[in-house]
Amino acid sequence: MTHNTRVAAEPSAPPITRILAEFVATHPSQGWDAGVEREAHRTFLNWVGCAIGASHHATVEAALAAVRELAPSAQATILGRSERVDIASAAMLNGITSHTFDFDDTHLKTIIHPAGPVASAALALAEHTGASGRQLVDAVVLGIDVACRVGNMIYPDHYDRGWHITGSTGMLGGAAACARLLALDAQGTAMALGIAASQPIGVREQFGSMTKAFHVGAAARAGLMSALMARHGYTASARALEASRGLAQTFSAKCDWNEITDLLGTRFEISFNTYKPFACGIVIHPSIDGCVQLRNAHGLRADDIERVDLKVHPLVLELTGKTSPRSGLEGKFSVYHACAAGLVFGQAGEAEFSDAVVARTDVVALRARVTARTDDAIDEAAADVTLTCKDGRELHVFVEHAIGSLERPMGNADLERKFHGLVDPVLGAARAAGIIERCATLASATDVRGLTAAARG
Amino acid sequence: MTHNTRVAAEPSAPPITRILAEFVATHPSQGWDAGVEREAHRTFLNWVGCAIGASHHATVEAALAAVRELAPSAQATILGRSERVDIASAAMLNGITSHTFDFDDTHLKTIIHPAGPVASAALALAEHTGASGRQLVDAVVLGIDVACRVGNMIYPDHYDRGWHITGSTGMLGGAAACARLLALDAQGTAMALGIAASQPIGVREQFGSMTKAFHVGAAARAGLMSALMARHGYTASARALEASRGLAQTFSAKCDWNEITDLLGTRFEISFNTYKPFACGIVIHPSIDGCVQLRNAHGLRADDIERVDLKVHPLVLELTGKTSPRSGLEGKFSVYHACAAGLVFGQAGEAEFSDAVVARTDVVALRARVTARTDDAIDEAAADVTLTCKDGRELHVFVEHAIGSLERPMGNADLERKFHGLVDPVLGAARAAGIIERCATLASATDVRGLTAAARG
Repeated sequence: MTHNTRVAAEPSAPPITRILAEFVATHPSQGWDAGVEREAHRTFLNWVGCAIGASHHATVEAALAAVRELAPSAQATILGRSERVDIASAAMLNGITSHTFDFDDTHLKTIIHPAGPVASAALALAEHTGASGRQLVDAVVLGIDVACRVGNMIYPDHYDRGWHITGSTGMLGGAAACARLLALDAQGTAMALGIAASQPIGVREQFGSMTKAFHVGAAARAGLMSALMARHGYTASARALEASRGLAQTFSAKCDWNEITDLLGTRFEISFNTYKPFACGIVIHPSIDGCVQLRNAHGLRADDIERVDLKVHPLVLELTGKTSPRSGLEGKFSVYHACAAGLVFGQAGEAEFSDAVVARTDVVALRARVTARTDDAIDEAAADVTLTCKDGRELHVFVEHAIGSLERPMGNADLERKFHGLVDPVLGAARAAGIIERCATLASATDVRGLTAAARG
Repeated sequence: MTHNTRVAAEPSAPPITRILAEFVATHPSQGWDAGVEREAHRTFLNWVGCAIGASHHATVEAALAAVRELAPSAQATILGRSERVDIASAAMLNGITSHTFDFDDTHLKTIIHPAGPVASAALALAEHTGASGRQLVDAVVLGIDVACRVGNMIYPDHYDRGWHITGSTGMLGGAAACARLLALDAQGTAMALGIAASQPIGVREQFGSMTKAFHVGAAARAGLMSALMARHGYTASARALEASRGLAQTFSAKCDWNEITDLLGTRFEISFNTYKPFACGIVIHPSIDGCVQLRNAHGLRADDIERVDLKVHPLVLELTGKTSPRSGLEGKFSVYHACAAGLVFGQAGEAEFSDAVVARTDVVALRARVTARTDDAIDEAAADVTLTCKDGRELHVFVEHAIGSLERPMGNADLERKFHGLVDPVLGAARAAGIIERCATLASATDVRGLTAAARG
């Protein structure tokens, strides 16, 4: 038996577990500018909408049925539903719902969907303890900062190995947020991060199955439980992130320690969060956007289109290369379906990724006429779309940045429209408007339970 | 941003998720020889003893306090304690207790401690459903086979990266055992294994903290919940283990697929399980054994010994190289303390790894006279021990296989003595004897709840 007893890389690693723990425990409330505060509220609103929108999906029914076998106590709300469950299960279920439609948010630099694991853990705990809106917002900002900075440190090698990075950094974000809500000191917060560091969730092979959304929920639950355990004196290594057999070096060959400390407390990663206009993986958004742009600019119908030629970054086909999706969920991992849907409907919300739409004759026929070619010269954020019409016209657009990107962000009106699209079918338009108002004024709420009561089904 | 879009290794990977699922779902009850059946009972007895022995340790109190914040329902027993908790929490807590003393069992080929994640999940579920002893034994044999075969497939690269392999394969064993108890079919079992495949637990940096034992408990809980979710229709990739972005290839550069299929259903990995005579990491057992052998053969006292020279495999110092342990727990990761304790007391049970013994003047003084040198030519299972006495004598022993190894196994009387040492202080000798009897006849019990009631504190 030959062991690889590599030389420890520890001497070069700064004590990032302690650095992050002190930051989370001691950074002042609202210790950031108005832009960060605004993005925190937009992040939260978008997350609540996604969670309520998917709250009765088959994925959630299956997970909730399993949780019910534990006969959980009624401590916290599953957004959009009437059932209440224990806080750990609520964190898991809200994490699952918010990611079920693949319609949530994206920290583009790492492809982390940060709200799911962080807000799901934080809200469940905040509801149970009766925390203020201010405390919740602070926890979400700091938790997302921890998850995304760890992501910056290890992306892309960690992701390329096969990890679903939202679940494999999100448990740290959830732990940080909950440690903050519990007012753990730096040592306790370090233990919470340490316990969480042993619980990365998710391999990318699960994309296209219900387990992708579970990654987000399981990360939220792991983060919450890690903070609770630390509160009661459970110990972990104080160097769990940086040690040679710790998280970073076990999960990634790239460990850029500076990403943890650069402008810590000054630059907040939530500033770079974006919100999805299309209910599918972020890498196909430029392609869909290009199709919708050409469709609208030229008044095209599906019948007008002879063929669609895409040039995309190789990751697009690696992640979303399913040529013959058999379900709505698989459709989210098919650039072919997504573009066909965008051309037929002019949008690609959750409805366009239903089983029925994926099986529609016209969509299937158009899908078969989409071809995608990879091109290393094209950025992940871009796509080159050419439509050949049956009348011989060749229409072309190069999308440098899709709608929803940092360069072309969703405005507040876009976000509210998206929220209504998700929530109205579950709770009705009037209640949806009330929740939007509560999210907009979250930081001034004396108790988050006003919001959770309003969001209950 | 440069992504590593390696070529998929899938074509060479057999469908091991489906193969293992069919095996677990369809292998006949007690479809093995008497040796396997005997080892299953010894594995179970040893696990119960370790769990009860540590049931009131500070590690468990901290974890239980966190679980209590969920106000769990009273579904299942924490062995050795009076409290009952929901089945997922019981799986976690019994996993933690059984590994807290680092005194449990070892599948030597992979250094997996297999009973913890598998039996903890299976017993909690079996108690709740009122399963028979036969069903429980079958589930434990099959669950351990899955965990250890996956371990065989990816060890040692997976371990060398920094994974605590018990937690990062154990969730599959727990899922398999629970899927069997729930009588899931092959498809449902494949989903349970698939959901579990996204939840590896544990980095080795945690060794020496409470989080090491948590790895075992968290794996048990993940396995149980994965089976419950699969039962209710939660889906995962049917190729979660073998796909290019699945468990094996994400977690390890070594993926020896044959280890899954070789003699599957004929050779059972539980046959190769061993039980610890010393309450610490398996790699230092040969060194302790050598010290105790020389001490007993020559009637030595600590004062007689000038110095102790060890020659050991490099892994010994990598895992247990703490020269100045500050607590009993750290003492378990110090070959220096362990050998000093063995020489002073003639044994190295849990008592010899207490905080008090680690701080004892005579033990500390002798510990400082132990030196260890690594030698690549020495096998992991062996140790070369030389004692230099103050009277000038030089005593030497080469331990090829320590007591407790497959070559020099613990007999039933050894196991029962160990069990009494662990359980008598918690439940008394009479009750301990009763539990031994129930474990010996487990396969014929009509309901496992007789055992759990007997083991309640």
